[in-house]
Amino acid sequence: MKTAAMTHLDGPSVPRRDRFAACIIRNPVSSVLPRGESDRQRSYHKRQKSLTNGSSRGLQIRSTFIGRGLNVQPLRARRRCRYLCSQTRARTSNTKSRQIESFAALPPGSVSPAKRQIKEVKETKATINCVTFPLPGEGPEQQLLKPDEWSYCDYFWADKKDPQGATSLPGFEVLLQKQLKGKQMQKEMSEFIHERTKIEEEYAKNLSKLSLSPLAAQEEGTLGEAWTQLKKSLHDEAEVHLKFANKLHTEVEKPLLTFRGDHFKKDLKKYDHHMADLRKQLASRFASVEKARKALADRQKDLEVKTQQLEVKLSNKTEEDIKKARRKSTQAGDDLMRCVDLYNQTQSKWFEEMVTASMELEKLEVERIEWIQQHLRQYTTLRHETDMFNQSTVEPVDQLLQNVDPSKDRELWVKENKTGEVRPVDMDI
Amino acid sequence: MKTAAMTHLDGPSVPRRDRFAACIIRNPVSSVLPRGESDRQRSYHKRQKSLTNGSSRGLQIRSTFIGRGLNVQPLRARRRCRYLCSQTRARTSNTKSRQIESFAALPPGSVSPAKRQIKEVKETKATINCVTFPLPGEGPEQQLLKPDEWSYCDYFWADKKDPQGATSLPGFEVLLQKQLKGKQMQKEMSEFIHERTKIEEEYAKNLSKLSLSPLAAQEEGTLGEAWTQLKKSLHDEAEVHLKFANKLHTEVEKPLLTFRGDHFKKDLKKYDHHMADLRKQLASRFASVEKARKALADRQKDLEVKTQQLEVKLSNKTEEDIKKARRKSTQAGDDLMRCVDLYNQTQSKWFEEMVTASMELEKLEVERIEWIQQHLRQYTTLRHETDMFNQSTVEPVDQLLQNVDPSKDRELWVKENKTGEVRPVDMDI
Repeated sequence: MKTAAMTHLDGPSVPRRDRFAACIIRNPVSSVLPRGESDRQRSYHKRQKSLTNGSSRGLQIRSTFIGRGLNVQPLRARRRCRYLCSQTRARTSNTKSRQIESFAALPPGSVSPAKRQIKEVKETKATINCVTFPLPGEGPEQQLLKPDEWSYCDYFWADKKDPQGATSLPGFEVLLQKQLKGKQMQKEMSEFIHERTKIEEEYAKNLSKLSLSPLAAQEEGTLGEAWTQLKKSLHDEAEVHLKFANKLHTEVEKPLLTFRGDHFKKDLKKYDHHMADLRKQLASRFASVEKARKALADRQKDLEVKTQQLEVKLSNKTEEDIKKARRKSTQAGDDLMRCVDLYNQTQSKWFEEMVTASMELEKLEVERIEWIQQHLRQYTTLRHETDMFNQSTVEPVDQLLQNVDPSKDRELWVKENKTGEVRPVDMDI
Repeated sequence: MKTAAMTHLDGPSVPRRDRFAACIIRNPVSSVLPRGESDRQRSYHKRQKSLTNGSSRGLQIRSTFIGRGLNVQPLRARRRCRYLCSQTRARTSNTKSRQIESFAALPPGSVSPAKRQIKEVKETKATINCVTFPLPGEGPEQQLLKPDEWSYCDYFWADKKDPQGATSLPGFEVLLQKQLKGKQMQKEMSEFIHERTKIEEEYAKNLSKLSLSPLAAQEEGTLGEAWTQLKKSLHDEAEVHLKFANKLHTEVEKPLLTFRGDHFKKDLKKYDHHMADLRKQLASRFASVEKARKALADRQKDLEVKTQQLEVKLSNKTEEDIKKARRKSTQAGDDLMRCVDLYNQTQSKWFEEMVTASMELEKLEVERIEWIQQHLRQYTTLRHETDMFNQSTVEPVDQLLQNVDPSKDRELWVKENKTGEVRPVDMDI
């Protein structure tokens, strides 16, 4: 049985990159799950799709981003290893439940197999904060979902204990905090660039003002022209820096500020609530399991007592009582199985959402870094441009300084200021 | 008869440029004067030399500067034209004085030749503000001392009437005012550069301060490194602008400010007083001439009256009286000649000082323009350097932005923040 995604993957006509993308868009988790899970994954996927489509701009899946990192070929090979233990085990629960039913009918006096069974479970798995993990060295070896990628989906399964150990933070919260911090960094960079634009504007204002100063405005001739151009060049410089400031504002500061607007934090909150709800559901299901487990133990104890009473014939109605107790014990066993099944379903759902959501956050972080990289590059480009344009403001000054000519200046000045060129002569008597 | 300077000029072994210099140092005016004047010029030159040596640094003659513009060859040719009329006429005054002596003994009844002579003089020359000029179209044509050079020494012989015409400003004052204005321009340019250094310092201060801002300091990984470098680059930029400011101060602002220090204005004052004194002396000599001229006219009138009396024989002692009147008239003629000679000597001295001083001021102005040109060039050089160094501050940022790698950053972050990679498994009963 193949999922739609897999059919896609097998099709040779689809380009490699698009195949990855298609695979992910259809079902981000399917390719890492055994074939037998495809029905549930499909329904899961439908939910994911609607969830994703419903989310605001900041969080929409871009197929290329998610698809990029998926190493599909090895994952399909690993499928045989049943490394996704939670899902495969869930399918075997019915068999186990039948086992319990059968050992409920064991001859009296023998050690309760149900108890033994539970003891075995406790030895290979441990439930921490309502999540069930295999104990170290127990169960089949788990391989990373996305090896060599340091993908978020592989490293945040446990909750994080705070230093005092009193409370603990879900691993997903750690990812969300990273997002919030990233958002904050992006905002602070924008602020930094804003400060820079202010400095540039101030500099430009001062240069422009000085450029209009009347200082040495009466200098004449070619030297006067060079001087006037030098003063003007400050205005040109001011323009260059003002342009830099404006471009910094529109091409760096603003994009850094507005990338992922106000919706982003709301979207993260939605993720947060969604995952927290699943964890609450899991906790509630776990409580049901515990309760059912206790009920079963009580029933089994009762059955055991009644079986012993039958042996010493303390009561007349014992045979009837034992039948009733056995029925109740069987019911309690069924209850426990239902509860465990519901718990496992919920844990499985949480697992799937964790994989999907963490991969989305991972993609968001890649986007953020690339966005920032792109705009800081724009910053350096603008800086280069500014230096270049700035150089050109001096060139006309250089030109006119080249043309400074004291003789010409004297000629101009003398022509304008001469008093008389007739020289005095001796007086006659 | 050749002056020492001329001998120098004729000597073939002296290089051309040095010959000019030598000529000028020995006698700035000799080469433009007729040979007959060489004795007086030599003594004038001695005065000039001691005057120049005694003057403070700002105004010391630099032989190369004064020598540079002198077109010696044409001047020697022109000597034949006697274009320096004042000096040549001064030598002919004795001949004229003898003429006066002789026509004082003319037979009575004839029109006074002395009166006629004075009338003639008035027709070809005019004395304005005590300086005697040839009337337009009268006397030999004057050629410029330094043709095609627009030299100060050729264009400031007359006094400048102020718009109301009430007072007039000596031409030399116009030259001095140009110097004072030049000094002021130089000072204002220095002020302008000072304002620029302040703007640069302010800019550098702001950049440096922003560079230390903690904004986005928590950005991590390769992006964090690029960001840290970007922030650091502002500090580097600040350093570049601070260096620019410092160099502007020491290499442009200060040289412009200190070029020709406080002594300069004092030196100009000395020039001013010296030339004003000569003009006062000239005025005083002119007054003496006028007075002597009136005395002679009176004596001639007296002699005429007495000669008429002799004709009608009105008196006995007339013969004796006429002899006495003729002697007094001759004495008055001699007096006038002496006064005119003194006047001409003083005017000649003033002329010489005018030529020397105006050429010195001209040289000072060339120096000023070249000094300013040189330092404004230094300004543009520093500006170019600044843009260049500024560019280099962005390069390490570009480098680190090139190295930004979202995968690497994720790896670093996950390694530090992961909560657990063991995935949950289904719970067993």
